Amino acid sequence: MKFGGSSVANAERIKRVAQRVVEKKLEGHSVAVVVSAMGDTTDDLIELARQVSKNPPDRELDMLLSTGEQVSIALLAMAVNEFGHPVVSLTGPQVGITTDDIHTKARIIKVEGDRLNDVLNQGKIAIVAGFQGRSLNDDITTLGRGGSDASAVALAAALKADVCEIYTDVDGVYTADPRLVSDARKLNYIGYDEMLELASLGALVLQPRSVEMAKQFGVTIHVRSSFNNNPGTLVEEVDKMEKVRVVSGVAHDLKVAKMSLLDVPDRPGIAAILFNSLADEKINVDMIIQSTTRGNNANDISFTIEKDDLDQAVKVVERVSQELGAGGFIYGSDIAKVSIVGAGMITNPGVAANMFSALAAEGINIEMISTSEIKVSCIIQAEDTKKAVMALHKAFNLEVE
Amino acid sequence: MKFGGSSVANAERIKRVAQRVVEKKLEGHSVAVVVSAMGDTTDDLIELARQVSKNPPDRELDMLLSTGEQVSIALLAMAVNEFGHPVVSLTGPQVGITTDDIHTKARIIKVEGDRLNDVLNQGKIAIVAGFQGRSLNDDITTLGRGGSDASAVALAAALKADVCEIYTDVDGVYTADPRLVSDARKLNYIGYDEMLELASLGALVLQPRSVEMAKQFGVTIHVRSSFNNNPGTLVEEVDKMEKVRVVSGVAHDLKVAKMSLLDVPDRPGIAAILFNSLADEKINVDMIIQSTTRGNNANDISFTIEKDDLDQAVKVVERVSQELGAGGFIYGSDIAKVSIVGAGMITNPGVAANMFSALAAEGINIEMISTSEIKVSCIIQAEDTKKAVMALHKAFNLEVE
Repeated sequence: MKFGGSSVANAERIKRVAQRVVEKKLEGHSVAVVVSAMGDTTDDLIELARQVSKNPPDRELDMLLSTGEQVSIALLAMAVNEFGHPVVSLTGPQVGITTDDIHTKARIIKVEGDRLNDVLNQGKIAIVAGFQGRSLNDDITTLGRGGSDASAVALAAALKADVCEIYTDVDGVYTADPRLVSDARKLNYIGYDEMLELASLGALVLQPRSVEMAKQFGVTIHVRSSFNNNPGTLVEEVDKMEKVRVVSGVAHDLKVAKMSLLDVPDRPGIAAILFNSLADEKINVDMIIQSTTRGNNANDISFTIEKDDLDQAVKVVERVSQELGAGGFIYGSDIAKVSIVGAGMITNPGVAANMFSALAAEGINIEMISTSEIKVSCIIQAEDTKKAVMALHKAFNLEVE
Repeated sequence: MKFGGSSVANAERIKRVAQRVVEKKLEGHSVAVVVSAMGDTTDDLIELARQVSKNPPDRELDMLLSTGEQVSIALLAMAVNEFGHPVVSLTGPQVGITTDDIHTKARIIKVEGDRLNDVLNQGKIAIVAGFQGRSLNDDITTLGRGGSDASAVALAAALKADVCEIYTDVDGVYTADPRLVSDARKLNYIGYDEMLELASLGALVLQPRSVEMAKQFGVTIHVRSSFNNNPGTLVEEVDKMEKVRVVSGVAHDLKVAKMSLLDVPDRPGIAAILFNSLADEKINVDMIIQSTTRGNNANDISFTIEKDDLDQAVKVVERVSQELGAGGFIYGSDIAKVSIVGAGMITNPGVAANMFSALAAEGINIEMISTSEIKVSCIIQAEDTKKAVMALHKAFNLEVE
């Protein structure tokens, strides 16, 4: 069972989580619980760090931030103990979550389940600190924002758990954002790859890295609400699923920006110079389109980035534009990315065409397109987002089970 | 160098400590620093625990409280790093402070200096969390209030450090409380046993356990101010001291209470019943006097305890009084203990007599007396405390070096 920071934000909520954990145990399960830091603790600690240092070393940030989860596990263990149930809290290092030494965004490389297994075999509930681990040098590391999901999946894999329950403030994974589509439906199951696409396309229910790990180790994730006992969404292998849907859901993402470098001389290596320059500034480029439709010896190169990176990208492209002797550049951020995701797309040709038709029928202009085996994404005007998501949800009959 | 919680209570103070630490390093020393939790952190954490549990398990309290020092070391390391000096923070477990498993008041049983030595040999400043360690079961333990002094002395011993500097809000150890005696003088040096007596007699500059360890391992402690660079007081072996003083200082303690059980039948085993009953309730008894002056077959038994324990002691004595068929009991807490301490007392008879004369000359009544090889303590009325301390300070010429 994994509970996020808002589920343990104060004493009352911690007691409620404790009750839920004890109930699960009394149902006959062995229970290991992963928790995040309480509410805004991590932000408060970062603010403290800012007060003493403009540029704190990552190792020391990890030393600082990892205390947040340690406070949570101690308090939750105390609350479980109040219910009269034996319980032990354990830090990431104590349960043997071993990571690389990339501080503030470490990756789990190994989990020693021995101590955790001992605790569970003694009939105790184990409360484990998420988000943290120990490097091979015995330094404390953290796994980056949302890293507690990864902790939970890694422990579930090490314990060969039946299921890794991730408790959130939503009921599960939906066919589309219910705020945009009134008849959006909770999915009872979804495949790992579909979930990965949805996670990285803006439906941030799970940290993408945790889905990757679940896929790698075959861990079934159950995304469910911390406010009720309704079944949520199972994230599992496609071959375990009842049926493979052609399209499982529609995602949208408004945090995108678009840039176009115009009239770029048609020489080899031009694209390499542009995208290496962006990569040097750690700017992630998502879609890329190069068009040679102008009939002269010049191209337009268009691409999308995260909206937050736009200011920095403008500086880079301005410089590159002059270096390359391009005709100039344009950019904008009033765009959106809408995507359809479905494991069954691989074997069903014509899905992309259906998407384009549905958008065209609403008079929505498609500015860019990208596809993978299990998704199709289109860049459209931001103001068309709701219309597009509704149209696609309807076109693929997602309101029906 | 050890800094307490008030020295690192906020970002400004942490920066000031960082500067002081870097200056010490630039003087050419290898520097390991021990810090406590910031200001009121420990109290705040205990309050959080109270909100989720009426009776939190000691193991989980340790898990919770140890985060306080971890926050301090991370922030101090960041502040030192701002001065451009290489630095590493380390938790108690990371430096190999091994303790027994008596949670919330664990005792250090071993210190592995290897990692700390490595850090220092690399020319880095080490910032170590005080107050905490790791039990042989790999559980996090804490050393009790004031335990950071013990951490500092234990590390100094493991590193064979030249000196263990304990920074406090006073300039050092004084011949008497300067608030009572205007010409009280800072001592340049004091022996371990004298310091132990002073520490347990109410002059709480150092945690007694840390003085015991310093004596055991021959660690020289330098008690000095965190606000200035004046030399403080060296706590060291008597045979290293310039001269052994007959009386080094006058201590007083107002947190005492007195009880008397009256007309107790004179049978063997009576005292054992009384003091075992008090010990069962974890009430520490300090002085004991049994008087048989009444000419009948009954005794009065008087003893002193800590004022905080009085309510509970009354309950115990009430019960025991009836069991034993005593004539009743009386108690009071408007008393004080004044003491003279000096390593030279052993070889100078008549010191106690001088003390009694000095008090008598001021018309101060002595209610109880206890002595050890290097101290004499008297119980007097609380209202006479200042007069008594001044008289003793003068009688033993403590204003003169």
